[in-house]
Amino acid sequence: MTEKAFQDFYPDHMAHCYGCGRLNDMGHQIKSYWDGEESVCHFQPKPHHIAIPGYVYGGLLASLVDCHGTGTAAAAGYRAENRAMDTEPALRYLTASLHVDYLKPTPLGPVIEIRAKVKEVKGRKITIEEWIVVNGVTTVKGELVAVQVPDQMVQELLSQK
Amino acid sequence: MTEKAFQDFYPDHMAHCYGCGRLNDMGHQIKSYWDGEESVCHFQPKPHHIAIPGYVYGGLLASLVDCHGTGTAAAAGYRAENRAMDTEPALRYLTASLHVDYLKPTPLGPVIEIRAKVKEVKGRKITIEEWIVVNGVTTVKGELVAVQVPDQMVQELLSQK
Repeated sequence: MTEKAFQDFYPDHMAHCYGCGRLNDMGHQIKSYWDGEESVCHFQPKPHHIAIPGYVYGGLLASLVDCHGTGTAAAAGYRAENRAMDTEPALRYLTASLHVDYLKPTPLGPVIEIRAKVKEVKGRKITIEEWIVVNGVTTVKGELVAVQVPDQMVQELLSQK
Repeated sequence: MTEKAFQDFYPDHMAHCYGCGRLNDMGHQIKSYWDGEESVCHFQPKPHHIAIPGYVYGGLLASLVDCHGTGTAAAAGYRAENRAMDTEPALRYLTASLHVDYLKPTPLGPVIEIRAKVKEVKGRKITIEEWIVVNGVTTVKGELVAVQVPDQMVQELLSQK
């Protein structure tokens, strides 16, 4: 695994996200890393992240698939250009669509592992395949389409707030 | 709209969910109601529910589609049997799959409206179509497949925790 998480390379204006922003004190602050051709993120759900007693809330799992997926898309974009994530021009990805299949209930208690790999790169779109493993059992499968957003559009979005 | 929210009929062991459980003090405690053939939920995102400055975190939007969808599935199940949600036998639904398309960024600030309607009922599966509207603009579309879980299975899940 690389030493610095994907999310630690995000510029400040992209670092407020509730799921993955290092500057959001109330958020999940997930950290994703390469692990060979796959990427990996470990997350400890809190007791209140509950669905029914004993099991993790599906909305949290969808959120983790979302942010680990966009992080992996960003890292894959830089990797495809064979350059580090702190080099210019910056690559920004937003989620266009998210699909999550809940294969079985995810036990609440252990650290959960979110894994991803790049399924397809097509123009500005990157499709990411993901899965969540707890205690060696895959409980969730997901797919995310991330779209590279021109920096100018990010600036416009930020100026409209 | 009906006066009592779908979620207020959930039995206690189904009322801890981070998204929709009335007994989860840390959670979103969403409230969903019938509005004719559609269901509706209003939600006020908090300032920390941010994606990039000025816009709502996509993981939260996925979570709202999830819980409003399962709530609508439950209500539709009772409605199909022409009985109130506090009558026996209890109907329990869990999310089998969730799909969310982010059509455009959702502004952070206003109350957001999550709407749903039943697309298909097929055996124990109910497919729910959803959309999120802010300031009159539809920013998200979603689809959820909910599966009716036998009460015995819910009891088994609860006893395994």
